[in-house]
Formats: sequence, C-alpha cells, structure tokens
Amino acid sequence: MPEWMLKPWRTLSRRLVLDGGKYLKVEYHAIELPDGQVIEDWPWAITPDYVNVLAETVDGRYLCFRQTKYAVEGSSLAVVGGYIEAGEAPLTAAQRELREETGYESSAWTSLGTYRVDANRGMGVAHFFLARDAHRVAERSADDLEEQELLLVTRAELAAALARGEFKVLAWAAIVALACAVGE
Amino acid sequence: MPEWMLKPWRTLSRRLVLDGGKYLKVEYHAIELPDGQVIEDWPWAITPDYVNVLAETVDGRYLCFRQTKYAVEGSSLAVVGGYIEAGEAPLTAAQRELREETGYESSAWTSLGTYRVDANRGMGVAHFFLARDAHRVAERSADDLEEQELLLVTRAELAAALARGEFKVLAWAAIVALACAVGE
Repeated sequence: MPEWMLKPWRTLSRRLVLDGGKYLKVEYHAIELPDGQVIEDWPWAITPDYVNVLAETVDGRYLCFRQTKYAVEGSSLAVVGGYIEAGEAPLTAAQRELREETGYESSAWTSLGTYRVDANRGMGVAHFFLARDAHRVAERSADDLEEQELLLVTRAELAAALARGEFKVLAWAAIVALACAVGE
Repeated sequence: MPEWMLKPWRTLSRRLVLDGGKYLKVEYHAIELPDGQVIEDWPWAITPDYVNVLAETVDGRYLCFRQTKYAVEGSSLAVVGGYIEAGEAPLTAAQRELREETGYESSAWTSLGTYRVDANRGMGVAHFFLARDAHRVAERSADDLEEQELLLVTRAELAAALARGEFKVLAWAAIVALACAVGE
C-alpha cells in the first residue's frame, strides 16, 4: 500500500470541555474519516510534553531513582524526567532536569526519539535522551513532591531490573529498553 | 533509604468532573502527601487498559503495520494492540487482538511486562506480550477504523526501524525495544 493511501483523519472542529489547569485539559473534536464518516465528540487529552533522561556516569553507572508516584503501586525504579516548560526546547529541559534532580551534567547528549504518548487521545509527547559521560557538578536541588532515592547501577543491573519489571511506568521502561536496544 | 520510607500519597476523596464515555473520564482527587499537606483537585484520567503484542512468525518475521492514527503525524509503524474489554484477562485480549488484526495465532506467549501509562494522571495500564511461533489460521478481520497495512519484517529491519524512530507511539516503541532488550 503506497504511503498516499494512508489517509489521516481530519479535525473539523474542537471545543474545550474541561480545563484542569496546566496539567490536564480535555477537548472534544469532531473528526472526518477518510470515507467521509464524521465522529462527533472524540475525547482529546492535552497534557504537557515531557522529557526523560537516562544518564550514564563517566565510570559506566546509570543514574536511577527509587521513588513513589501517585499512579503507581508501591515504589518503582525511575529515571530523570519532568515536564517541558513553556517555550523551552526539549534538550534544554532534559539538561535542566538532569542537573536539578541529580546534580550531574553531561556534554554527550543523544536523542533516543520522540514519541506520542497516546495514539488516540494525545496526552502530549515524550522526548527521550541518553546523557553519557555524566559527572557531578552540584548538590541535588530536586523540588519534586515525591521522595526520591538516587541510585547508581551497572548496565547489567539496569537490564536485569528492566526484565524484572521494576520500571513500572511506561516511559521509564521505554527509555531504558531503548537505551539497551539501540543506545549503543 | 529503606522501602518503608517511600510513603505513597493517599487519596482522600474523588469526584467525577468529565464523563467522555468509555474512552475517557476525568476525576479530581484530593490527595494527602506524606508530610500532611493536602492537594485539592489533582486531575486523574481514566482510560481503558490496553494490550500490545509483538508477534514473531515461525520463520522469524515480526508482524507490524504501517498505519495512521489520529494523534500521530503522517504514518507510523505499529504493532498489534487494542483495548481490553470489560472482564477480559490481558492475555485473552492479546490473543483476540492478534487473531482479529492479523489472522495469526501463537501458542508461545511471554509477558513483556505491565506498565502504568502516566505516573501522575493514570491513563490506564499497558500489558505487553511477545507471541512466538505465530502462524496464520484465518483471514484478517480487523474492524479498526484506521487503514492498516500488514508487514512481515526481519529482526534486523525491526531494530533498524526502531532506531530510526519509525515507531512513533510510546507503547509501540516500548514493546519493540523491550523485545530487543529483554525478549530473547
């Protein structure tokens, strides 16, 4: 099937139906399908785009956290991450979050891709980065509400934790798996 | 930091603020933090849990699609997937989706993990499966609204497409990366 036959859906109109502040807005879209059929009130969720960073130190350790999150049962292994601020470039946000959450910096940044969070509803875009040769330049200044424990793990420990399902959040498992699969 | 120090947040109350049908509901939660602070009106998004399946045929090809989705620019490589129906077990949903979308079946199923889609807002849970020794038993009977082109790709092609960012949706990139990183 040639590319031109894969016709996207067309947005006819959109109306805001819930304003939950900067973290969640919901619109209903009227959408026209390629065959002319129209879907009314397609829910569309607007949340901030975010970054995640997998940082590898100069001596080959990976920076992780053990932390709790509201939507996760128990604690989870996590990676550096956070929302992109208004007008901020994804890489700038990634560098800021790495510095704030760990006190580390890196001058060897690689993109691990940009992904739509939900193929139907939207839910923002995730930007993933690998930060090699990370080195400590400052104390942590995380202002996260959650408690966070910083861990330095080997590559073998990272892969084993991934396989055991210890990264319980989709984006965190995704970036670790991407680094293991294509990051080298 | 011992595990018991990682205290989760506690839900004090919840109220429905948007009922967008079975695909999206939004609640506001009142939440108590470990230090006693209370957050009012924390947005919580309820969407159906879903499955994704990476299927490998008996001759070592992986089943993918090229398709369009409303929230994705252009077309994307995709894997088998869909929402879990009410009362349906994740593995049953995975087997149903594989059969419906491709006409293939497998008797060698492995879990690639279960992941919360959004650590703060909820957005359901993703269940990933690897289906080995997949073989064709029927015609495709996909009722998806989107156009879908079925592709059979080698492992090398799969890994190369992942590295090029051709899986544009977080869950699809995640399951392919997980299969490459831990699936063997």
